[in-house]
Amino acid sequence: MISIVLIGTGNVARHLFDTFRLYDKINIVQVVGRNEQALAYFGQYSKTGSNFSNTEPADIYIIAVSDDAIAPVSQLIANVKGVVAHTSGSVPMEALSKHPHKGVIYPLQTFSKERKIDLKNVPLCLESDQKKDLEVLNRLAHLISDHVYGISSKQRKSLHLAAVFVNNFTNHLYQIGKELCEENNLPFEILNPLILETAQKLETLSPCEAQTGPAKRGDLSTLKKQVGQLKNDRLIKIYELFSRSIQMKFSRD
Amino acid sequence: MISIVLIGTGNVARHLFDTFRLYDKINIVQVVGRNEQALAYFGQYSKTGSNFSNTEPADIYIIAVSDDAIAPVSQLIANVKGVVAHTSGSVPMEALSKHPHKGVIYPLQTFSKERKIDLKNVPLCLESDQKKDLEVLNRLAHLISDHVYGISSKQRKSLHLAAVFVNNFTNHLYQIGKELCEENNLPFEILNPLILETAQKLETLSPCEAQTGPAKRGDLSTLKKQVGQLKNDRLIKIYELFSRSIQMKFSRD
Repeated sequence: MISIVLIGTGNVARHLFDTFRLYDKINIVQVVGRNEQALAYFGQYSKTGSNFSNTEPADIYIIAVSDDAIAPVSQLIANVKGVVAHTSGSVPMEALSKHPHKGVIYPLQTFSKERKIDLKNVPLCLESDQKKDLEVLNRLAHLISDHVYGISSKQRKSLHLAAVFVNNFTNHLYQIGKELCEENNLPFEILNPLILETAQKLETLSPCEAQTGPAKRGDLSTLKKQVGQLKNDRLIKIYELFSRSIQMKFSRD
Repeated sequence: MISIVLIGTGNVARHLFDTFRLYDKINIVQVVGRNEQALAYFGQYSKTGSNFSNTEPADIYIIAVSDDAIAPVSQLIANVKGVVAHTSGSVPMEALSKHPHKGVIYPLQTFSKERKIDLKNVPLCLESDQKKDLEVLNRLAHLISDHVYGISSKQRKSLHLAAVFVNNFTNHLYQIGKELCEENNLPFEILNPLILETAQKLETLSPCEAQTGPAKRGDLSTLKKQVGQLKNDRLIKIYELFSRSIQMKFSRD
């Protein structure tokens, strides 16, 4: 049995809560947060509340709050005995320096309130500087996910940056695709199978092998024509920068 | 029964061929191509060969060759009676101007030799300036795909450009993600669930609703820190351009 106090009421806290509830071996002792309205989501947990200084005993205290709040919130629970772990991609473990037993459990995924995510498929990136604390985090992580990694603070920061490229920026390209469809009275859904296949291709091909298009082929005449089709300066800049970057990549190889 | 002559031996021709063979109602009369080695793929079709001027009678002649070759190849079969259709995203239908019965059947997908694609899920974009010819193309298209659209040459050109953004450029972002992983001794597979979920999210959320990250939040301090992490000028430019573009998008809304 692993007992857990969950601190925070946002997307990550909710997804962890929904997952923990599925396992008999995980006991959610308490959910703590400032936002009374958001706390309603966790309502059946009687000790749920906003009093940080009066948290119950537990094996792990998971701080799933916004990056800036991690250090101050961790100080509000300075006297607890269990492992205190935050869930952020970009905050170093040292933000929890007040705690003798500290760690990180970073789920590498994009969470929205509207989408259920099966944590079994989500990579959990663990960090701790004490072997025993890492073992506790490992026990929890292996219960809920099939993909558990030991990752240093430095690696995690880079991973978070890589996630910005493959998630935030990719999603922005989808947004641009949608704008181009709408300008031409085309339904955005028409791009969906292509978007899915682009992602699924990575099951069998590396991004380098999967790359296609005029920039990869060095087809300057098509590149020039396509820039000519774009009316928006912002899109022209993105088009030119990516085409150059792809050309550089493939002329180097 | 629809009879087809397929001209070309590349990725699109192969995927069409593999699909056509699945249907009793489709008769592949002949495959024609210049590349004798590539023709071996279609070997069991006895009339397969490189003689364009001696093609068999058929309802539809599908020209699945590189963009530059479409017009000259179409002239090699100037005397055929059926509908002559090319499969390109960027070439106008008028490239087939010699033919009284011309059209386009553009499969909006990324094809690689190494991946089988189920055409049932691939949008087929049809164009023809004669109702009867469009009906012939429609009959074929509805047999093999559940997503058939009538699309003008102008719309198709924009769609092809949108595909460059959501496929070619997205794949380049995956490439960058891979480079950032490798620099930090992280396996690229760790990003796979995130990449898949980013694409799958579009089933339930618009790109605008799905957008997350520091640029969307206007979190300038994180943006500055992340630029500082990047050592490569090319990546810094992409990071800054995307962050500005996302910020503009969300400050406008």
